[in-house]
Parts: sequence; C-alpha cells; structure tokens
Amino acid sequence: MVDGPAAKKQKKDAGYVLYYWPGIPGRGEYVRLAFEYAGVPYSENLDAKTLVPTLHDASKIGFPPHFAPPALKLPSGKVISQTPAILNHIAPILGLAGAKGKEERSSVNQLVLTALDLCNETHDVHHPIASELYYEDQKETALDRAKNYRENRLPKFLNHFQAVLASNPEGESNGGSYLIGSRTTTADLVLFHVLDGVEFAFPKRVAAIKATGKYDNIFTLKERIQNEKGIKEYIESGRRGKFSLGLFRHYPELDGDE
Amino acid sequence: MVDGPAAKKQKKDAGYVLYYWPGIPGRGEYVRLAFEYAGVPYSENLDAKTLVPTLHDASKIGFPPHFAPPALKLPSGKVISQTPAILNHIAPILGLAGAKGKEERSSVNQLVLTALDLCNETHDVHHPIASELYYEDQKETALDRAKNYRENRLPKFLNHFQAVLASNPEGESNGGSYLIGSRTTTADLVLFHVLDGVEFAFPKRVAAIKATGKYDNIFTLKERIQNEKGIKEYIESGRRGKFSLGLFRHYPELDGDE
Repeated sequence: MVDGPAAKKQKKDAGYVLYYWPGIPGRGEYVRLAFEYAGVPYSENLDAKTLVPTLHDASKIGFPPHFAPPALKLPSGKVISQTPAILNHIAPILGLAGAKGKEERSSVNQLVLTALDLCNETHDVHHPIASELYYEDQKETALDRAKNYRENRLPKFLNHFQAVLASNPEGESNGGSYLIGSRTTTADLVLFHVLDGVEFAFPKRVAAIKATGKYDNIFTLKERIQNEKGIKEYIESGRRGKFSLGLFRHYPELDGDE
Repeated sequence: MVDGPAAKKQKKDAGYVLYYWPGIPGRGEYVRLAFEYAGVPYSENLDAKTLVPTLHDASKIGFPPHFAPPALKLPSGKVISQTPAILNHIAPILGLAGAKGKEERSSVNQLVLTALDLCNETHDVHHPIASELYYEDQKETALDRAKNYRENRLPKFLNHFQAVLASNPEGESNGGSYLIGSRTTTADLVLFHVLDGVEFAFPKRVAAIKATGKYDNIFTLKERIQNEKGIKEYIESGRRGKFSLGLFRHYPELDGDE
C-alpha cells in the first residue's frame, strides 16, 4: 500500500484505495490526477501478483467482480472499475463535474469518454492485432495504423477538442482553456494527460501540429492544468510515474517524418 | 424524423430525439433498446447528410459539440453523445439503473462499459488498421486479429460476464440472468445486443461456446431479454434493424473452423 499525498494527514481512514499495476502511469493515472487535483487522500494497492485474481473474484472484492484494473474502492467498501465509470462516480464528490447539475455532469462524462477514446486509439497504434502479442510481432501493421492515426484520427480528435474549447460560452472570459464552464473538470484532467501521452509517443507529429497554430486552445489547456496547484505539486513531488512501455509508447518509426 | 413506438400516443412532445445513421442498428441500437424496454417515447433524426455537420457545430446543436453519433436530445434541449454517457444519463430516468442508489448505478455503468468494450473489439476484428479503409484492404490483418479474438478476447469477456451473473447474490432467486440485482438494467440490454451481434458475426464460434455449457447464464440472459415485454414487441414489430455491414459483420473467413 502506497499513500497518496494528503494521505499523510489522514492516513488509515482515507477510504479510497486505487487498485492498479505498479510501475506504469497507465489508466490508473486518470484516477490519480482527479484526487491529486482535488487534494483528497487516497492510497494504492499495487500488488501485481494478486491484482487480477482479486479483481476477478467476487468473494474477494465484492459484487460485481471486475474485468480489468483500474478499480477504486470507495469509503463504503464498494469497488468500481472501468476508468470512465470511476471518474463519473467521483467527479461530483471531488467537485470536478461542472457547476450546473446532472446534464452538465453528463457532458463532462461525454468529453471524458471521447478523450479516453483517443487514449485507446493511441495505444492500438502499437498493438493493432493483439495486446497479448509483442509490438515487434505486429510492427508492420503498426506502421500502417500509425500512418492513418497521424493523418486522420489524431487531427479528427484535436479538431473536436479545439471546437469544444473555442465554442465554450465562457471561453472569452476564462482564456479558452476549460472544456466545460470555467471550472476544472475530470474532462480537462483526462485531456491533459492524453495530450501528454500523445506528445511523448509522437513528439515530431505533435510539434508539427503545434506549429500550425490551429490548436492553440488545446495546448493552453495542457499548460494550464500542469500549473494548477494540486497537479503542479504532484508533478514536482516526483511521484507522478514516467511514460515508458505502457499505454503510450515512443517508437520513432511510428512518428513519421513530418 | 421517424417515430418510436409509444410516440404514436404522445407525438410532438416526446422530447427525446436520437440522432444516428440510417439503415444500420449500430451504436444507436443501445439507446433504442433502453427506450423500447421502458416504453418511453422517442423519435429519430436519421438524416445522413446533415447528421455529422450538425453534431460537430455548437451553433446548430448547442454546447458542447459532439465527436460522433449517436447523440440524444433531452427534453430540455440539451444534447448528449457517447453511448455510455447517454445510457448512464437516461438509466435512472427510465428505471434501468438498479434499485440501490448511486453506487449501484455506477456498477451498472461499469458493466455497460465492459459490454461496449466487447462490442468495440468485435468491430475492430474486421477493421484492425483503420475504420477509414475497406475490409478488403485489411483482410490479412483481420484474419490474425480474428484468431486472437476467438481464442483469447471473446472467452475473456464471456468468462467475466458469466462470473458476474453467477456471483449475483440474488441469482439463486432470479434464475441467474440479471447482471445487477433482480431488475433489468441498461447493462442487461447492452449485453443482450452485443451477444446478438457477436452471434451474427461469429455463428460457428458462438455455437461451439454454447455447447461447452460453461456460459449458460449468459445465454439465459439473452433469451430472457428478447422475451421481455417491450423488447419482444419491438422485435416483432419489424422496426428493429437487421445486422449487415455495420459494427457487427459476418465474414465466414473470420469465424474459424471449430
């Protein structure tokens, strides 16, 4: 069990426990960022050996059992899995679901899901045939998929998020870097991390995209979030895991030439 | 605009409008099944020519704009997209979010997301490189991906849903065909439709899986749902779209030999 930041003050009874793989940020990071931003304590269960057998077994984890990590134990003892389900559950508790009630919360959920779709598609570039196989065994296909990702998919997602930011009715007064209203939501935090991962994986492609000047709101959002109080402290603490061979991977041959 | 079933009684002011592609069940079907089961009126906007330009443009659809259909206009005028966000929004309104409050609603959301992951992976078998390309242009890779899907991914998902059904504490009294509690939820409806699609796409593989007797609860759920009042009427009305060349596709060469 590893303690989250504020956990030092409020140790044993923090109540939230994140179950995830050790050593990679992965999808667990989306959950961590929400707690870190909000300054709410959480602890982690990172035992790779028992993780999946525990999550699969209702007699150990409670009902219903889970397909895969991340999973979050709530203060009640109930465990929720599926990244967007976890985020949608904790967003109103952590003040990250917008300011205007149920329908706005669903808009936040919608944007989280679309940002996670970009995350999934970025992963599938290096594993187009099977996550059960090595990259090297599907590299030829990955090259084809990467080309389509660079030319079609990534611009499609960025055009969407730029359009959301640019059409936010509160954008003129808040600098145009909030997906919903003028408060940080889980959607901002997820998009921040996905952009960070995409930039790690495709540095040349992202540099070219930045240079177009067509996506300025998106890169302003990224910079804003990494300087927000809880997130800045988290990054500076050194506790934030580094990208390596997880969801987001840097293979220069997939990054193209432009 | 095409009217849903109960819409006849309550025409103009039904309030819910589904935006989707015409001619295929697709992801719109998950939304339709929720309304059909609940007997709540909805209408449809199936104009393929204006669908995407409308959804992308906040000046036409309201804020935030959308990445892709399906999208649902709520009675308030607000539009929500992303299938799981739509379902999570309407589930409590339609009585499909379980009986035990917020945490159970999140378990339903979790199971919906996992069933939709199976849907997405089933789609990606026939489009492993790019949804922008024809099947014929990625058929060789599809054959490899199909083998992994049949041998690893599909059994992994079915083992999970069988484990959920078999460990439902209310399972002994309800016949073991409810994912959560003893009431139909959006999770049951989504799993029903995904199973139907998987059986359409991989008939030989599903027959072999059924014959093992290891997944009886799953197939009992499928039969139960298709005989539930609203769903039975919907199927018998002929309004339910047929599978063809949408998300779920039958290519015999992907179905394997067993």
